[in-house]
Amino acid sequence: MPGVRVGHCTLADGAVQTGVTVVLPHAGDPYLDKVPAAAAVINGFGKSIGLVQVDELGVLETPIALTNTFAVGAVAQAQIRQAIAAHAEIGRGWPTVNPLVFECNDGYLNDIQAMAIGETHYRQACAAAGADVAQGAVGAGRGMSAFGVKGGIGTASRLAGPYRVGALVLANYGTPAMLTVAGRRVGAELAQRLAAPTATDAATTNAATTNAATTNAAATDAAPAATDAGRAATDAAQTAADSGPEKGSIIMIVATDAPLDSRQLGRLARRAGAGLARTGSVYGHGSGDIALAFSTAYTVPHDAATPMPAVAMVHETELDPLFHAVADSVEQAILHALWHAETVSGRDGHCRRSLLSWMPELNFAD
Amino acid sequence: MPGVRVGHCTLADGAVQTGVTVVLPHAGDPYLDKVPAAAAVINGFGKSIGLVQVDELGVLETPIALTNTFAVGAVAQAQIRQAIAAHAEIGRGWPTVNPLVFECNDGYLNDIQAMAIGETHYRQACAAAGADVAQGAVGAGRGMSAFGVKGGIGTASRLAGPYRVGALVLANYGTPAMLTVAGRRVGAELAQRLAAPTATDAATTNAATTNAATTNAAATDAAPAATDAGRAATDAAQTAADSGPEKGSIIMIVATDAPLDSRQLGRLARRAGAGLARTGSVYGHGSGDIALAFSTAYTVPHDAATPMPAVAMVHETELDPLFHAVADSVEQAILHALWHAETVSGRDGHCRRSLLSWMPELNFAD
Amino acid sequence: MPGVRVGHCTLADGAVQTGVTVVLPHAGDPYLDKVPAAAAVINGFGKSIGLVQVDELGVLETPIALTNTFAVGAVAQAQIRQAIAAHAEIGRGWPTVNPLVFECNDGYLNDIQAMAIGETHYRQACAAAGADVAQGAVGAGRGMSAFGVKGGIGTASRLAGPYRVGALVLANYGTPAMLTVAGRRVGAELAQRLAAPTATDAATTNAATTNAATTNAAATDAAPAATDAGRAATDAAQTAADSGPEKGSIIMIVATDAPLDSRQLGRLARRAGAGLARTGSVYGHGSGDIALAFSTAYTVPHDAATPMPAVAMVHETELDPLFHAVADSVEQAILHALWHAETVSGRDGHCRRSLLSWMPELNFAD
Amino acid sequence: MPGVRVGHCTLADGAVQTGVTVVLPHAGDPYLDKVPAAAAVINGFGKSIGLVQVDELGVLETPIALTNTFAVGAVAQAQIRQAIAAHAEIGRGWPTVNPLVFECNDGYLNDIQAMAIGETHYRQACAAAGADVAQGAVGAGRGMSAFGVKGGIGTASRLAGPYRVGALVLANYGTPAMLTVAGRRVGAELAQRLAAPTATDAATTNAATTNAATTNAAATDAAPAATDAGRAATDAAQTAADSGPEKGSIIMIVATDAPLDSRQLGRLARRAGAGLARTGSVYGHGSGDIALAFSTAYTVPHDAATPMPAVAMVHETELDPLFHAVADSVEQAILHALWHAETVSGRDGHCRRSLLSWMPELNFAD
Repeated sequence: MPGVRVGHCTLADGAVQTGVTVVLPHAGDPYLDKVPAAAAVINGFGKSIGLVQVDELGVLETPIALTNTFAVGAVAQAQIRQAIAAHAEIGRGWPTVNPLVFECNDGYLNDIQAMAIGETHYRQACAAAGADVAQGAVGAGRGMSAFGVKGGIGTASRLAGPYRVGALVLANYGTPAMLTVAGRRVGAELAQRLAAPTATDAATTNAATTNAATTNAAATDAAPAATDAGRAATDAAQTAADSGPEKGSIIMIVATDAPLDSRQLGRLARRAGAGLARTGSVYGHGSGDIALAFSTAYTVPHDAATPMPAVAMVHETELDPLFHAVADSVEQAILHALWHAETVSGRDGHCRRSLLSWMPELNFAD
Repeated sequence: MPGVRVGHCTLADGAVQTGVTVVLPHAGDPYLDKVPAAAAVINGFGKSIGLVQVDELGVLETPIALTNTFAVGAVAQAQIRQAIAAHAEIGRGWPTVNPLVFECNDGYLNDIQAMAIGETHYRQACAAAGADVAQGAVGAGRGMSAFGVKGGIGTASRLAGPYRVGALVLANYGTPAMLTVAGRRVGAELAQRLAAPTATDAATTNAATTNAATTNAAATDAAPAATDAGRAATDAAQTAADSGPEKGSIIMIVATDAPLDSRQLGRLARRAGAGLARTGSVYGHGSGDIALAFSTAYTVPHDAATPMPAVAMVHETELDPLFHAVADSVEQAILHALWHAETVSGRDGHCRRSLLSWMPELNFAD
Repeated sequence: MPGVRVGHCTLADGAVQTGVTVVLPHAGDPYLDKVPAAAAVINGFGKSIGLVQVDELGVLETPIALTNTFAVGAVAQAQIRQAIAAHAEIGRGWPTVNPLVFECNDGYLNDIQAMAIGETHYRQACAAAGADVAQGAVGAGRGMSAFGVKGGIGTASRLAGPYRVGALVLANYGTPAMLTVAGRRVGAELAQRLAAPTATDAATTNAATTNAATTNAAATDAAPAATDAGRAATDAAQTAADSGPEKGSIIMIVATDAPLDSRQLGRLARRAGAGLARTGSVYGHGSGDIALAFSTAYTVPHDAATPMPAVAMVHETELDPLFHAVADSVEQAILHALWHAETVSGRDGHCRRSLLSWMPELNFAD
Repeated sequence: MPGVRVGHCTLADGAVQTGVTVVLPHAGDPYLDKVPAAAAVINGFGKSIGLVQVDELGVLETPIALTNTFAVGAVAQAQIRQAIAAHAEIGRGWPTVNPLVFECNDGYLNDIQAMAIGETHYRQACAAAGADVAQGAVGAGRGMSAFGVKGGIGTASRLAGPYRVGALVLANYGTPAMLTVAGRRVGAELAQRLAAPTATDAATTNAATTNAATTNAAATDAAPAATDAGRAATDAAQTAADSGPEKGSIIMIVATDAPLDSRQLGRLARRAGAGLARTGSVYGHGSGDIALAFSTAYTVPHDAATPMPAVAMVHETELDPLFHAVADSVEQAILHALWHAETVSGRDGHCRRSLLSWMPELNFAD
């Protein structure tokens, strides 16, 4: 997204595998020129800070920060100090500032109890912000896991008529059996390989996948079965197999240059859930699935003496291309996260191997 | 779902192609023994009645009714009269009753302006209720369209550990290009056949579908592309093609025998959106996408003198299998609706052919 | 409010004491030129239709209708037919229309089971709409009760800097003991007179009221007691006395000429709850307390080909005067409803006498 | 409330006038035995942490903490460390923990930029917790202002049939002109005295208040005027006088021993807004007005292997006494806060005098 910058600070040292990622919606002062925004809490098992005020006022007034669950407090304090450094009257003659920090739990790889993230790491992420975005096991994505493999940061964008939509995700959700790539339910195979890694053989697996599709033809259910669970096995057993407890979360940040008000941005944010569902997610109980959408088309002045912008918003009936673009971008950004995330080892000998190390046949680029 | 009955009243006479479908959660009096429930408004372009009170109180007190958009008033009045007939003090010594009517717009096939549904049709649907549920172009589904083909009523259920989840949908949403069946994006092919129907050739199409999958291997994008849009074409052109204006809606009724309170049922209802997304939906602007979940495990007495039930709810960490079952059931119910819905002709010579008439290769049972 | 018109249709014939009130936000076509709006469901024990779509899209597309609980269906159908009469393509080439009907239960005075309201009454109310608004026992207010006395329609407006705020209420809530007028808790006295009407003596009562204030000085609680309950009696007994079951509801329509988007209008709507609370309400369980706020400053075109308005909204920090004006207008409109509502007799010999017949000392104008 | 303990840590040293207050719902482990709860965001200009998860899951799993706006991060970290200290598997084999910290801005008296609150102060507040609750300028209330005078911590409770409701508030909101005590609009007088403090004369003022009531009789408006604004002055001028920009917030914690589920507790929390409105608040733009209600009647086990409680909740129609008790308790707790809060001087020579120093005539106990 033109004008939007992203920065990472990555901590990768033994048991500490974590970091901070920031999204800066514009090059100006985020407190003086507030960015229209809205959030969608798809599943609220999450510990973010800042959404109460975003819901009420429909604007951001700090950079967007992502980090691990136990670092929210430190990063929020860093945002407060950053705002005060820019405006000495914050909390005195002026109101306070609303920190906005999202989180996922990277505790499998990262010694999250070490609370290794400090305020300086937030500042480093801001200082590193630029238009080029590293993906995978970087920044807040450093210690994240998804579908039993390495997760992390991914981005993607799509055009929607005259507008652009971009997504950045922090992917840290999903059990192996759930993984769905471009509509293919590869999760059963992934789960099998994870359970018996030595038997993994990419060539064999390809055949198995093909067979799975073929056996649809023998299904006794007249309608095409939507799910593996609907077919040969009893659905009881199968659903149980699909449904191991999910730990983790996903944060989905959506940017667009379309002129939208916060109500419309809320509609966009909710479509992140459609993209997420395509990857196999059912918004598991333990997964804090939260989306935030913002527009770069205009800003709202902090100072009441500054004239308010007079913006012609997109007509409601023209939102469908943007909705598709959000779902597509989020789905693609998740795949990019899995694609780029390299194998990481962390605390107590824990290791998350990359998706491609388990399923090299997904590497179409070979 | 044991104990849950469904009834249809179908009007099929020339330009009138519409109906009423009712879901009766239990065999008792719905006003005296209220059913715990919760709704999820996934996209609120809808004209239902009753959700304000369901949100506040977490219970149903009438059967659930589904019909066309312009029949909500008539069916709500029928529900009121039905409740008064059972309890002469309603609206006198007792409080009033909360009608609950969902709707989709069947105006393509049905002369919706004729407002052909009367109170008697609601009563007929109730009288016809039973454990066996006809699917397809019946009841409220009579005039519905989905993905450019015939839509209507579908049902499916899944086991989730010791519990069962069932879904009934009224499917009336989606453009042809969006259709996704069991993960396969067959919509592009469907859109092409609808645009040039004479050229349709099932055998050719099967090959085309196979080729589409194969050409993934040649994609220049290193990561597996999540969407057609990500591949060969520029995403701008492709997203536009995917994004024609969507008209219609889907109502998703979810029943479970798990003991859940209304907050938990709200969590289930929201998972209907995951199942819906798997079929290609992005919750289009013009589609009223609404889910309602209820439990058959207990009821709440109307009379304050009756002891309240003391129910041990399902532990929150054991909801994931139910979440999967909701998504799976809803996805499967939508496919069942498409599968069972036969070709229907209605007003002004409009005709919606069945999905299978366009894509016979989906008919695995042949 | 300049440009806003209100119309009543009143049915007053024996056991039928009910009606319809409409609010027309502007003189144009409400479907083509949609009015920005938002609702606040303060207590959702209500059976309105239309709020799901208002929440999603932030606009109205019909007049606002108020009526009795069992007439919602009939009035919604009348709104649909009105929209079709204006635009023959609604439900055909165009989308459907979202009826918006609010209700209260007038079943004490009105034979609500007779379902006497028909579509013609809605049309009559629209035809009668004008800038002058009759208050009291008229239109939808005909059969309403409040605080054990006659309720109904009230209006009031306030200036807020350069803007005006107007409120129209349909008051049908509250037990006698709750009534609070301009901060004075006159409800205890009202309840006593209602319980033993022959003993009523205005002069005596005035003295009693004065005494109640005086005895504050003897309270053993050091802080000024906020509530009667805190004083001489045990709070258990007193709270019970204050808390008889409340039946009824209140609908609060707020209009402003300030340019506000729907998010901001939602903030205004929520302030109606503050005005309501000042009259003694605690948003009782059985009271559907719903507010809707709209702006007359601009409209949103139905037709996507019409340019969207480019409106500079009011700066968020300048909303406080509007918030005060909403609370003040709603409080005053409620008092106006009580003031203007004359004694009405209805079904089964039920009678609600006017507030002033019970408490003439409130009639400061004498 | 039996079983509920409250603790304060107060920092009062020159420019640092702030603190932490904690509410411990029970004596057990808050993570293992989670307390049913729900929040109501009445005006979301606030920076709390923890509400996203409370909304989703309906339980608390830490003590409730209150502090200043810039200390939320530090206190959240202290809560995390406290939970880890009790359960070493949190963030490892177990999920993480949801900190719950509310805040108001005490920046007028306190040098909030000094960020003086550290994790130790949270622990001290927990260690100090007991059944006796100091009120006024203590704990988080140390630096708070309300209505232009000293605010802080207040508590009150009411019986509601067989149940008890208690409220603890952190009052930091309101302009002088808004203050309403037991229904009397004393704010105009307070504002006048604050503007010209030397002229203050309690005896004169009492007379003025009496006169204000008397002049009602001369009003030309037939209905009793609900607001000062409705009387002699033009409403434009008066509303402006009432509506200076409000800075600050109020946090309202409501406890009850009634067995209620989280949906019902949400209904209770929303009634805090009624009590707040009685004091003159209109939920000003800049005031983060947030309520949280919890029940002490049962807990929800963290461990899925522990049987879930089978609780018969209060019947919905029996909630009205609890609703009244919430509104009454909150109103009274606010008055107690004003009553107990002594004059405090803080940063840059700022001073907030106690309410009673300005309006000694409110001291009925003299």
